[in-house]
Amino acid sequence: MSTIIDVAESSNPHVNEKAALIASPQKPGGWKKGIAIMDFILRLGAIASSLGASITMATSDQTLPFFTQFFQFEASYDSFSTFQFFVIAMAFVGGYLVLSLPFSIVTVIRPHATGPRLFLIILDTVFLTLATSCGASAAAIVYLAHNGNQDANWLAICNQFGDFCAQTSGAVVSSFVAVVVLLLLIVLSSLALGRH
Amino acid sequence: MSTIIDVAESSNPHVNEKAALIASPQKPGGWKKGIAIMDFILRLGAIASSLGASITMATSDQTLPFFTQFFQFEASYDSFSTFQFFVIAMAFVGGYLVLSLPFSIVTVIRPHATGPRLFLIILDTVFLTLATSCGASAAAIVYLAHNGNQDANWLAICNQFGDFCAQTSGAVVSSFVAVVVLLLLIVLSSLALGRH
Repeated sequence: MSTIIDVAESSNPHVNEKAALIASPQKPGGWKKGIAIMDFILRLGAIASSLGASITMATSDQTLPFFTQFFQFEASYDSFSTFQFFVIAMAFVGGYLVLSLPFSIVTVIRPHATGPRLFLIILDTVFLTLATSCGASAAAIVYLAHNGNQDANWLAICNQFGDFCAQTSGAVVSSFVAVVVLLLLIVLSSLALGRH
Repeated sequence: MSTIIDVAESSNPHVNEKAALIASPQKPGGWKKGIAIMDFILRLGAIASSLGASITMATSDQTLPFFTQFFQFEASYDSFSTFQFFVIAMAFVGGYLVLSLPFSIVTVIRPHATGPRLFLIILDTVFLTLATSCGASAAAIVYLAHNGNQDANWLAICNQFGDFCAQTSGAVVSSFVAVVVLLLLIVLSSLALGRH
């Protein structure tokens, strides 16, 4: 059997694409579908960890049992502008990941479509940067709260506010889980995009 | 003119690829070459800003002109472990970017090769995360140095150490320039990878 392609007459590239599709093996996108399904599952994990981080940080609040006449000792995420940024940014990342689920489903249904995958890679990279920046800045403050800094004369506050410190540290760890999963999502998507 | 391709005999996909190449327009990779050249130029900018950030932070050091009998007031990047991390991580990012230049040149010479581009996207994403994390954590500390925190009783040190604060702030800004350029590099590379 031989196929005749008239090159001079059909400069339309779709015809040639169709010819290439006919010639290729019957199930070409098996592993791409596998990557798309893994993408969807990892995305669910990233949603859980990012929203979990945001909620954990937002509910961190500790009031010490003793107080003076004029002042009650209280620590909450409101006290640190970095933690406020953390709550807002992680909520944004979680919201984006929820909204990206339909696009992930599209790549499961049509593993060869490059459009949705490209869209996901670019937006994933932007939100990876957002998640990393808020996670790292919160980590810097948590480190200071635990250890303090002698040269700047900043004292560690975790001796007094132990529960507050534990809760914010947990939120930071959860945000780093989201960062690692997002990194993995980008690597998987670009592998699926690059190999044919 | 008509080309005859024997499909039954040649299940080799390269033959079909060649047929598609013949049928496509004469200069198919013009814009991909343009993206590869832009990638190279942006990479040079990212090298300058990341190494500049590292060196600026590493040379930040201020000794106050007054001292007591037992103590001399001095601030340097050594005082803050976050700034030490910043110096090391930005130097790593700069070193990676220098080593990635040959791969960028390969994409200029062969705009259709997906291997080097894929390699660059994945490693760029990893080093984007590293650069963002050290830039954001240093920004959190610089913010504290400027504004302090009343609830934790951490006083602003920028009143005393003005030059030190200015220099570290400059290093943070320079690291954010590197982050933005890396983000742009990933978006450009994935566009070149996704569109055929």
